[in-house]
Amino acid sequence: MVGERALTRSLTALFAPPTGAGALGIGDDGAVLVNRGRHTVAVCDPVVEGVHFTATTPLALVGRKVVNRNLADLAAMGATFDYALVSILWPRARAARGLRALLRGIRDAVESRGGRVVGGDTGSTSGPLTVTVTALGHLRHRALRRDGARAGDAIHVSAPLGGSILGGHLRFAPPLKLGQRLAAGRAVSAAMDISDGLALDLATLLEASATRAGVALGAELEAAAIPLATAARRLAVRTGRSPLQHALGDGEDHALLFTVRPKVAWSTRGLPAVARAPIGRVVRGTGLTLVGADGVRARLPAIGFQHGLGR
Amino acid sequence: MVGERALTRSLTALFAPPTGAGALGIGDDGAVLVNRGRHTVAVCDPVVEGVHFTATTPLALVGRKVVNRNLADLAAMGATFDYALVSILWPRARAARGLRALLRGIRDAVESRGGRVVGGDTGSTSGPLTVTVTALGHLRHRALRRDGARAGDAIHVSAPLGGSILGGHLRFAPPLKLGQRLAAGRAVSAAMDISDGLALDLATLLEASATRAGVALGAELEAAAIPLATAARRLAVRTGRSPLQHALGDGEDHALLFTVRPKVAWSTRGLPAVARAPIGRVVRGTGLTLVGADGVRARLPAIGFQHGLGR
Repeated sequence: MVGERALTRSLTALFAPPTGAGALGIGDDGAVLVNRGRHTVAVCDPVVEGVHFTATTPLALVGRKVVNRNLADLAAMGATFDYALVSILWPRARAARGLRALLRGIRDAVESRGGRVVGGDTGSTSGPLTVTVTALGHLRHRALRRDGARAGDAIHVSAPLGGSILGGHLRFAPPLKLGQRLAAGRAVSAAMDISDGLALDLATLLEASATRAGVALGAELEAAAIPLATAARRLAVRTGRSPLQHALGDGEDHALLFTVRPKVAWSTRGLPAVARAPIGRVVRGTGLTLVGADGVRARLPAIGFQHGLGR
Repeated sequence: MVGERALTRSLTALFAPPTGAGALGIGDDGAVLVNRGRHTVAVCDPVVEGVHFTATTPLALVGRKVVNRNLADLAAMGATFDYALVSILWPRARAARGLRALLRGIRDAVESRGGRVVGGDTGSTSGPLTVTVTALGHLRHRALRRDGARAGDAIHVSAPLGGSILGGHLRFAPPLKLGQRLAAGRAVSAAMDISDGLALDLATLLEASATRAGVALGAELEAAAIPLATAARRLAVRTGRSPLQHALGDGEDHALLFTVRPKVAWSTRGLPAVARAPIGRVVRGTGLTLVGADGVRARLPAIGFQHGLGR
């Protein structure tokens, strides 16, 4: 069995990053292509029945989800959203009923964010329904990379976290405007889309930043500062785990995780209150530490949802 | 069951084509996006185990095939090839062995044509191995549309056809340079990638052109002029069908099908001999007519390989 991380590592190892000013390749939320002074950002993300949705998920919501997953990646790069290409692999034995709902869900999600579906391809598969979207946008400012965090930076998230399995994973709103705002100044040092859960994605961001800086980086998170989604509280009642555990470990929140330089002026105008309050800070060393309201410190495993490992 | 054509019709019906000078949307081989005076062409095409390759196909060849299918679409638009994004859905229960071969096949195919893999995403699936590539290029000249043919235009193909199932479907060379040459002048009126078989793709080209022109269009093909691949002859020995039937009906040749205005100067410099010789012409009316060496005329059904319908 191969986890997503192993696959991504293989991809990263084999494909050298593109060169050229401002160009970014595999390993971040999106690729940045420089073209006549304009920076195009390209992202490509699939959803698969049985992994990202179930046989009973309304197909309009599946269409919405696959588009918005891609827009969340564009948001995490600080990019606009301009165009989408859609590739659909329809199960061979499945009736055509539902196809229009899927296409409508895709179209509505694209058009509601000002984009346009410009291309598509379809085929059949002996496997589950698979929809892959490629989204293209451009940078108004700089690219938000995930590898720019340094010790001392404050850690922020853009929305309450946890419990997305109760429906949020189908209905989240990709924070495109917020990403562009964060890219406008120099204060935000790193950003990424929270897709695998806060703890795991923070570990990824720190690993990328540590590799770039050549020093070990960890983080301290303040338990009381982590914003909990209503769904995390509702889910906790059912699972017996705490809302905080769900906020740290649940995937598919698709909020932005970002770090802010302590001594650089940062305009928080237009940002929601939740995004302005830090939840912790980047420190020298390794690993994640959770600091409780009582001051008790606990090491936190880099837990989260990994595609291929089940929920 | 839904055939690829039905799916594409649904896509075309639901998504309005983009507007703007030179912009093309769903329904052609690729999408054309205008960006600061530069025309970007985007294509997106998947391959699925059990449909486009089998469990015994070497994965390096699978990687090569998925890249080259996309490059054939770029070629049919008259575009260059610049960048590729790769999305891999790996079967959950499958060992990682083979992944490196797949990635190498992708990289080698991309780099041998001067392109660069700039992004990728991976996930797992309960279904068959699925690899989707998005390729981006740009236009040096105009876009080669598939809907520009008119009655009287000569019909050409860029390579001998038929028998790709014997291995050509894995090893074809996408005619990128040829496509760019055809786009340089004004003589070539329409072009498309032969993926579903000459007869079916010619019917598609004529239908698109007829819709645009508002008149019914058909074609007369000269049986003796259709170039037969060696593989078509070899396959015919096994199947009992004629090499010509294979040339007309087999899919995945990925040669270019194109039409040429009779009274416009056409520079054939640098074109292979096979591409310079017409195989027939576009006529008023509907349907395809095959003219034998003896002058006997036969109506030709629009036959070919359709994904989802089997070979």
